[in-house]
Amino acid sequence: MEIAVSRKAHFNAAHRLHIKEWTDEKNKSFFGNCNNINYHGHNYDLIVTVTGEIDPVSGFLVDMKWLGQLIQEQVENRFDHKNLNLDCEEFKTINPTAENIAVVIWKLLRSRLNNHLKLKVTLYETERNFVEYNGN
Amino acid sequence: MEIAVSRKAHFNAAHRLHIKEWTDEKNKSFFGNCNNINYHGHNYDLIVTVTGEIDPVSGFLVDMKWLGQLIQEQVENRFDHKNLNLDCEEFKTINPTAENIAVVIWKLLRSRLNNHLKLKVTLYETERNFVEYNGN
Amino acid sequence: MEIAVSRKAHFNAAHRLHIKEWTDEKNKSFFGNCNNINYHGHNYDLIVTVTGEIDPVSGFLVDMKWLGQLIQEQVENRFDHKNLNLDCEEFKTINPTAENIAVVIWKLLRSRLNNHLKLKVTLYETERNFVEYNGN
Amino acid sequence: MEIAVSRKAHFNAAHRLHIKEWTDEKNKSFFGNCNNINYHGHNYDLIVTVTGEIDPVSGFLVDMKWLGQLIQEQVENRFDHKNLNLDCEEFKTINPTAENIAVVIWKLLRSRLNNHLKLKVTLYETERNFVEYNGN
Amino acid sequence: MEIAVSRKAHFNAAHRLHIKEWTDEKNKSFFGNCNNINYHGHNYDLIVTVTGEIDPVSGFLVDMKWLGQLIQEQVENRFDHKNLNLDCEEFKTINPTAENIAVVIWKLLRSRLNNHLKLKVTLYETERNFVEYNGN
Amino acid sequence: MEIAVSRKAHFNAAHRLHIKEWTDEKNKSFFGNCNNINYHGHNYDLIVTVTGEIDPVSGFLVDMKWLGQLIQEQVENRFDHKNLNLDCEEFKTINPTAENIAVVIWKLLRSRLNNHLKLKVTLYETERNFVEYNGN
Repeated sequence: MEIAVSRKAHFNAAHRLHIKEWTDEKNKSFFGNCNNINYHGHNYDLIVTVTGEIDPVSGFLVDMKWLGQLIQEQVENRFDHKNLNLDCEEFKTINPTAENIAVVIWKLLRSRLNNHLKLKVTLYETERNFVEYNGN
Repeated sequence: MEIAVSRKAHFNAAHRLHIKEWTDEKNKSFFGNCNNINYHGHNYDLIVTVTGEIDPVSGFLVDMKWLGQLIQEQVENRFDHKNLNLDCEEFKTINPTAENIAVVIWKLLRSRLNNHLKLKVTLYETERNFVEYNGN
Repeated sequence: MEIAVSRKAHFNAAHRLHIKEWTDEKNKSFFGNCNNINYHGHNYDLIVTVTGEIDPVSGFLVDMKWLGQLIQEQVENRFDHKNLNLDCEEFKTINPTAENIAVVIWKLLRSRLNNHLKLKVTLYETERNFVEYNGN
Repeated sequence: MEIAVSRKAHFNAAHRLHIKEWTDEKNKSFFGNCNNINYHGHNYDLIVTVTGEIDPVSGFLVDMKWLGQLIQEQVENRFDHKNLNLDCEEFKTINPTAENIAVVIWKLLRSRLNNHLKLKVTLYETERNFVEYNGN
Repeated sequence: MEIAVSRKAHFNAAHRLHIKEWTDEKNKSFFGNCNNINYHGHNYDLIVTVTGEIDPVSGFLVDMKWLGQLIQEQVENRFDHKNLNLDCEEFKTINPTAENIAVVIWKLLRSRLNNHLKLKVTLYETERNFVEYNGN
Repeated sequence: MEIAVSRKAHFNAAHRLHIKEWTDEKNKSFFGNCNNINYHGHNYDLIVTVTGEIDPVSGFLVDMKWLGQLIQEQVENRFDHKNLNLDCEEFKTINPTAENIAVVIWKLLRSRLNNHLKLKVTLYETERNFVEYNGN
């Protein structure tokens, strides 16, 4: 009896899409205004989905309060009100696209979750653009 | 040509998380303020997803009006404006966590649906916490 | 240069609409299933709106973090995961309709706000029903 | 490292559910007020989901701007502010149910996408009714 | 002690913006694709706001169930799944712009409300476009 | 017969709250993590509300397409994917708080609107924090 439990969180951050190995022209042509040298920013909405067996006694898959705290420690404290390119070790060598941010968050949470739980991360960069990553 | 059709519904109910076999201390420590002896409540948002083949003549998978009425009869009439712990047979021996409520709703609907249709239930306890159950 | 600043918050509570001076029949007939003797519940969404002059130096009307903490102390800590009828002094003699809850919240916040600030409270009982109160 | 990238779009259209081979009575009985001879209409919300490998250099799965333009050309320009039954070739012989519209959109986009990308289409006919199609 | 109470409703309708006294060219130039001769459509979201004194005994301004039924009778039954131009007497001589639809709805409801209650109507034609009318 | 017409728009930008005349300690203490030297960012949602008389012939207050283009030219092109502090003349000497951004946007639009139209600007910095400014 497998169930999926999801919790929403969010963080507000600045970023810039830029590949150091590319010329400025190529960066500007490829990333458009997301390449702005002075950065822009987003309210990132995050949904963390954990899948596994319901505990037959408590009726919980995981304690939502615990899951909320894990997301706060591993994601919100790390990225909220930060410049992803300048302030965050995780993006020193990785371009902070929505795709890459989702993978980074997935890895940060995966390492803290019991192996028998599956994990999916959904990240909204804007209300109209979002990505999903489950490690497969 | 398999398609999934979803319909949203909702119900407002009181509940309390509590395991009779546990001491009051353990209940309070485990469930926190969800264990409040006088109950609290939620606006539960429900998404019922039915998957199967489109009828090549009508272009319907199922009639949405019929699906809406089924949810009203089996879920809304049963749980809306109720105390899940006190008013609802289904939770006399089952702790009304979001996980367990989703499973109960899935079973209530599953028994009324044609076997060749798949069923998934998504239940929002709050805007930030939700669960999904598909019977696998 | 007057501006309005709003902050959203929420709390989950059980309640029952019931007038002690009325007979059970009149209560049931007037309040319908909101009169259920065992209570039901809601996710209450709250918007607190404060109006006044922008501080010309800081560019703030009020510090949003301070406003958020005020709402948490005065409203969320008081009503979240509570039974409004049984657990809350404020509703011992007041029927916890959305209208009355909004007025109670307005009074709790009004007494903590500087006199030169105007206050409005918007309370969503469900996504479809909400009330607004500004003390006039 | 497979990831799913989604983009929202929308179009406003009129339509009527009607099967030419059926009698007027059967159409009215089966489709109810969706069979209104003078049409009714919807704000259709569309989510297009593309799945594949992240490009290790750019950190993109696909360029969201390109995906947005593809949806505009293939879907919005074709269906926005149109009468699906009268103005759109695609529904001359197909009943414009939400299910059929989703399949038509899927086919229009599928033919323009690289073969190694998977495609899913989610179509909201109203806030409460939506369908999902992925071609399987 | 004046309070405002709001209830949301919705209806799905087809319409066409067109002034009979204007040439086809002027209509097309002025209303753009909203002038499409075969109509297009929308999911109209409606918020009806009633303002007055809270009843000191019941704690209600108006019974929300009664308000919901009034909206259903006066608005939803009249306009839902209709072609506003062809099926609705109200728009035989009035162009069904969002502005005019809001005024029509306001008048329909105003005639059924007690004089000591104020009335405001908010009508969303799309998620991005909406109008408000209060009779002043 | 006065009506209000609103249109939503949005822009994504980086910013930093900082008063040059204050010490770094005072800035950090007053603005908290909004003072991060490397900036952070938001998806700003904007609602522009114009109030006036409905044109009795066209049934429009203003042409929504025109209003949308005005917002794009005056606001979105100016602030979208920008660093408000570094890239935008408007905030060279003004701290880009939500309050100040709303006033700046109001002034930019006010100068382009006919005098007999009233103007209100609502700016969401996050889903939970928003401000309203109407020039009074």
